[in-house]
Amino acid sequence: MKYDLIIIGGGPAGLTAAMYASRYKLKTLLITKIPGGIATTAHKICNFPTYEDISGFDLMKKMEEHVKKLNAEMIYDEVIKISNKFKVKTAKGKTFEAKKMILAAGTERKKLNIPREMELLGRGISYCGTCDGPLFRNKNVAVAGGGNGAVTTALLLADYADTVYLIYRGDKFRADPVWLSQLKGKKKIKQIFREDIAKLEGEKFLEAIELKSGKKLKVDGLFIEVGAIPDQRLISQLKIKTDSKGYIIADKQQRTNINGIYAAGDITNNSLKQIITACGEGATAANSAYQDLNK
Amino acid sequence: MKYDLIIIGGGPAGLTAAMYASRYKLKTLLITKIPGGIATTAHKICNFPTYEDISGFDLMKKMEEHVKKLNAEMIYDEVIKISNKFKVKTAKGKTFEAKKMILAAGTERKKLNIPREMELLGRGISYCGTCDGPLFRNKNVAVAGGGNGAVTTALLLADYADTVYLIYRGDKFRADPVWLSQLKGKKKIKQIFREDIAKLEGEKFLEAIELKSGKKLKVDGLFIEVGAIPDQRLISQLKIKTDSKGYIIADKQQRTNINGIYAAGDITNNSLKQIITACGEGATAANSAYQDLNK
Repeated sequence: MKYDLIIIGGGPAGLTAAMYASRYKLKTLLITKIPGGIATTAHKICNFPTYEDISGFDLMKKMEEHVKKLNAEMIYDEVIKISNKFKVKTAKGKTFEAKKMILAAGTERKKLNIPREMELLGRGISYCGTCDGPLFRNKNVAVAGGGNGAVTTALLLADYADTVYLIYRGDKFRADPVWLSQLKGKKKIKQIFREDIAKLEGEKFLEAIELKSGKKLKVDGLFIEVGAIPDQRLISQLKIKTDSKGYIIADKQQRTNINGIYAAGDITNNSLKQIITACGEGATAANSAYQDLNK
Repeated sequence: MKYDLIIIGGGPAGLTAAMYASRYKLKTLLITKIPGGIATTAHKICNFPTYEDISGFDLMKKMEEHVKKLNAEMIYDEVIKISNKFKVKTAKGKTFEAKKMILAAGTERKKLNIPREMELLGRGISYCGTCDGPLFRNKNVAVAGGGNGAVTTALLLADYADTVYLIYRGDKFRADPVWLSQLKGKKKIKQIFREDIAKLEGEKFLEAIELKSGKKLKVDGLFIEVGAIPDQRLISQLKIKTDSKGYIIADKQQRTNINGIYAAGDITNNSLKQIITACGEGATAANSAYQDLNK
């Protein structure tokens, strides 16, 4: 049996795409590893319009319930094989076929891979300055990383926090000149090079970090900005164009270079990776699929 | 006193832009004629993620309250004059200046301009098939218009309604061939040319329409799709690029051809005009303004 549309990924982009596809009466299947995607791990979301303060878990649960009310078919499984014109095989051994496909599988944030990193997530550890920065007003925080993500996060945090330790294992930040010139004026930001974070301390919440050199820093927050990558296992099976960082290149209608494949949300080369932008892109992708199906 | 950012328009795009700009700590002023924009007039919204069924009024009120909690400055006024680098003058005689500007003033839907059109809005009269189509399952409806909007709305409604009268004053629809070819297969859609809608009937809800020729059609719904236009008074004061229909051309980052001016939502040449897409664009526009201010 052939679907009109298969959506891979059940975060904000995938769920909104399913919502719109259902309302366009497309025969739609959504396949997702975890319901809600990575957004469920955000401990506090204050910037999804109409919700001043909600957990990622609660917000994504509401979104998923909305999709279920629209009778979209949704399975919890992982796509392990994907081929053009468009067949997928899942980890649970099922195969499905569709006329169109939306890739909305998001990214995985790179981790520091140190003890207690996951345990303290949402208890001082964060992967999103835009989301959680305002929580650290007048506190001391650290940022791990040296690219655009780390430097812009440090700059943003300097608007709230008293001190921002920007900790990078390299000799020189890899960020754009525009951000580096900004750094100079910011006395709140203490730059630390050739260091790694070795240990996290604190009982229920993060209280301090210990560097490889043995130096200890008292901080309430640690923003890990060492990069994110879309799942290359699926992308590499398609001849789909990505940018130099591995993100799928999508146009304003969320079309990719492959006819019939659309991409939405964090997996794409969009300029802002937020829940609300992912939702908008999901809706647009579903609309483009609907338009193309009717051609 | 100079603002970092002035946002013109307080619908979904403008409000979300204000939300993000506030969180980026930009000194922001939002100027809007009516709080919530045209979205407040939707009687039933079922496709804004997490809300299965909410009135436009209630949804936009929540969104506005969210912005107010973030202490964004918002005034109810109308911008009547706008100049490059960037000064605005309002109907109430105030002037403001900003470093960057987001245009999010939406569009005005063209009306039929017949008696009771506004009175029956949300009581059978609708301007959005995607939003309200599912409400007319197994009912008879009419669509007024002959362009892409009217024809695609008729096609969508044919998935729900028993009969769809597609009423156009011209001899031949102006829609794209792809949509016209779709029309041929749809027996539910009755095409009526060289006719105008003259009268609306029904007590509390729309019950019938009378055509200019005197012919009466019993319908529960009438979708008015005779076009929409962005407010050209402001656009024409700037040397801002628009498409052939008058919509502002915005790139994926919501930048326009004028350095420092961004556009988001219905006023732009986006492919889908929905609340959720406008919100995403508003967030992206605010992010681009923030990035550019820091350059």
